[in-house]
Amino acid sequence: MTTLELSGGHVLRPDLTVERADVLVDQSAGEVLEVGALAGTGDEMLDCSGSLVMPGLVNAHGHGAMTLLRGYADDKPLEAWLEEDIWPAEAELEAGDVGAGTRLAAVEMLRSGTTAFVDMYFQVDEVVDAVTEAGLRARVGHGVVTVGKDDEAARADFEESLAVAERHDGAADGRVRTAVMPHAPHTVGTEFFEAFVPRVHEAGIPLHFHLNETPAYLDPIEAEYGERPTVYADDLGLLGEDSWVAHGVHVDDSEIELLAETGTSVVHCPASNMKLASGMAPVQELLDAGVMVGLGTDGAASNNDLDLFDEMRDAAMVGKLAAEDASAVAAPDVVRMATEGSAAAAGLPVGRVEAGGVADFAVVDFEQPHLTPTHDFVSHLVYAARGSDVRHTICDGAVLVRDGTVTTLDEDAVRESASEHATALVDRAN
Amino acid sequence: MTTLELSGGHVLRPDLTVERADVLVDQSAGEVLEVGALAGTGDEMLDCSGSLVMPGLVNAHGHGAMTLLRGYADDKPLEAWLEEDIWPAEAELEAGDVGAGTRLAAVEMLRSGTTAFVDMYFQVDEVVDAVTEAGLRARVGHGVVTVGKDDEAARADFEESLAVAERHDGAADGRVRTAVMPHAPHTVGTEFFEAFVPRVHEAGIPLHFHLNETPAYLDPIEAEYGERPTVYADDLGLLGEDSWVAHGVHVDDSEIELLAETGTSVVHCPASNMKLASGMAPVQELLDAGVMVGLGTDGAASNNDLDLFDEMRDAAMVGKLAAEDASAVAAPDVVRMATEGSAAAAGLPVGRVEAGGVADFAVVDFEQPHLTPTHDFVSHLVYAARGSDVRHTICDGAVLVRDGTVTTLDEDAVRESASEHATALVDRAN
Repeated sequence: MTTLELSGGHVLRPDLTVERADVLVDQSAGEVLEVGALAGTGDEMLDCSGSLVMPGLVNAHGHGAMTLLRGYADDKPLEAWLEEDIWPAEAELEAGDVGAGTRLAAVEMLRSGTTAFVDMYFQVDEVVDAVTEAGLRARVGHGVVTVGKDDEAARADFEESLAVAERHDGAADGRVRTAVMPHAPHTVGTEFFEAFVPRVHEAGIPLHFHLNETPAYLDPIEAEYGERPTVYADDLGLLGEDSWVAHGVHVDDSEIELLAETGTSVVHCPASNMKLASGMAPVQELLDAGVMVGLGTDGAASNNDLDLFDEMRDAAMVGKLAAEDASAVAAPDVVRMATEGSAAAAGLPVGRVEAGGVADFAVVDFEQPHLTPTHDFVSHLVYAARGSDVRHTICDGAVLVRDGTVTTLDEDAVRESASEHATALVDRAN
Repeated sequence: MTTLELSGGHVLRPDLTVERADVLVDQSAGEVLEVGALAGTGDEMLDCSGSLVMPGLVNAHGHGAMTLLRGYADDKPLEAWLEEDIWPAEAELEAGDVGAGTRLAAVEMLRSGTTAFVDMYFQVDEVVDAVTEAGLRARVGHGVVTVGKDDEAARADFEESLAVAERHDGAADGRVRTAVMPHAPHTVGTEFFEAFVPRVHEAGIPLHFHLNETPAYLDPIEAEYGERPTVYADDLGLLGEDSWVAHGVHVDDSEIELLAETGTSVVHCPASNMKLASGMAPVQELLDAGVMVGLGTDGAASNNDLDLFDEMRDAAMVGKLAAEDASAVAAPDVVRMATEGSAAAAGLPVGRVEAGGVADFAVVDFEQPHLTPTHDFVSHLVYAARGSDVRHTICDGAVLVRDGTVTTLDEDAVRESASEHATALVDRAN
């Protein structure tokens, strides 16, 4: 057993109190052995003085390789942006693009303290390779869309999502988990849900999909079935404790209740919802109803970064606007969303710094002018810190970022490769 | 004449196009001599390769020394937050606190590319000392509040604002300019506006005040005078081309028109307006009406940082939500707000990189994972960049931040001093 000691820092405990403590990790098991005053007992030491050791952040909804389209098309509403810019570009995506874009996403997430992420995209074999190399933890899946496809192609797409989920679950020493990921209730035909959802449950695979992101997600379902999409989704067996949905912007009270009753988690994506003018999710109402809420960046093309510190700040800010109450969506609730909430949503065993827990951490440097004075660590994490304050990132006991430098991937090479793939992709699409 | 060459980078031109160019500066005059291919003709060279030279950002509304109360009280609505937390703490403020807090604000702003700021606070002599030492540009003033004061104290407060404005205008080699700063229409008695505003105009001093930040700013004026605060302010001579107002959240169409007609600028403070649940300013309507719009962070206690990159992102994001239109408050409009808009609002001769212009710049490092690929520089400045991407900050021809290190103030000493003052201040208030 080799041990790693995170020494000299403060620690954010599961109850969100902060204390001066060291953290001892069994690196081979990727597990926390002890939190307390250790004074140099680790085989390897990691200096955390002036810093806060917190759970690694968990990005519970995104499309990693969309980093290639960061800043490609802005200031447009969701439907026009998808139809005129994003889908034509994505139609030209090749496997190598997904690998390059996901490696860029991995570097960006690692540098900003994210240790686990959920990825709904295509060419998932490439995603798994990137995750494995980067040393991250992930829940990955193939996104299914059947609208605009003939029956055979639609079935093949859903089959691919199942096959991908079965093929990759447990990869990268167990750091990779999988899910089946139908895009949304209105972009997958009822007959395909009816054919495949029972098979997904039989195989014990979780489900992840977009729910009520914009009014355009509601209208077709209400017109055809006369019910809200959450009710329709429940009828099809899409809700439950193994399901988590992204966005949930336009959910009414009965839908919030149904999400709570079925144990379905909601991943709030405030930056994407603002940038695409999708609206403000009723986050305080979701919390009050007992719904588990996580946080996600969505793809970089609608954000335009993958920094969960930005997302925490946005969640608190827009949560107050939505509730018209400055006490709504308070800082401690937001820190929970980005750690335990996202982890619970995505079914990953992370999100708490405690003995016996998984050794996934972000170490945040508090010796910064914008984090001075320190009246309140939790407030600073939400309202003042940014991804660039992350000094070290540890996942599964391995130091993936040390003093701001990624140890597993060559950052310059990743940036160069992504730029080349992005330029070629956009050239093909235009 | 000593010249400085910003070499090897790209330059953001006044029309927001970006080109490969060097910038030659006359350091003693603080003026740009040339923008183009210079190839090493400067006496001193500043490497800007991989980076974008843009106008220094201008923070057109704030209260610098409130950095001492960063994170002191969060998740509370404006009125309760002021009455229960902020005012009791500010009542204990001593001159040394203001100096320490303003130095901390200066370090934070310099590190994140802000070269000029507006400061409405108390103990302005201390503010001027801090600005002078830091090398920044500023428009400073003493904030006047007369409610709760007897006639003599109220008059003395307004006199102090005038005296401060006359005493300090042109300080620090002209980098310090001044204004008279009555807090808001409802916190200063009509009789004091009537007595002092003519004197302010006679002295040729600009005016800066809060307008319609929350409904509580409207109700007393509408109840007593039966008119909107903007109309009331106009009746008192508070509007005009030498006036700029902060917030303007709850302005109706007739008020927007009046602001446009009188040439009064509005400083949008989106982070503070979200955090205090004050509401969403109608920024696209203000722009459409031809109102000059700038950007401000407000004080650090309601933000909680002084990073104008955050503020640009917030302005674009919340502008779209407010307009329910993803094309509203687009990235180029936001970059203009944070540069030329804020500069015009505060009457400072900055905001454009061009020959003959003032030599105030932020140099942004684009060789970052979250700024890769670079489909669009302007998009990245608003949606993906953060203050920590600022590599160099130049004000009045002087390099105030070089490769992330402040050259004029000792950052560690400033942080330590601010922490000590903050702890003592909060102890006295409790």
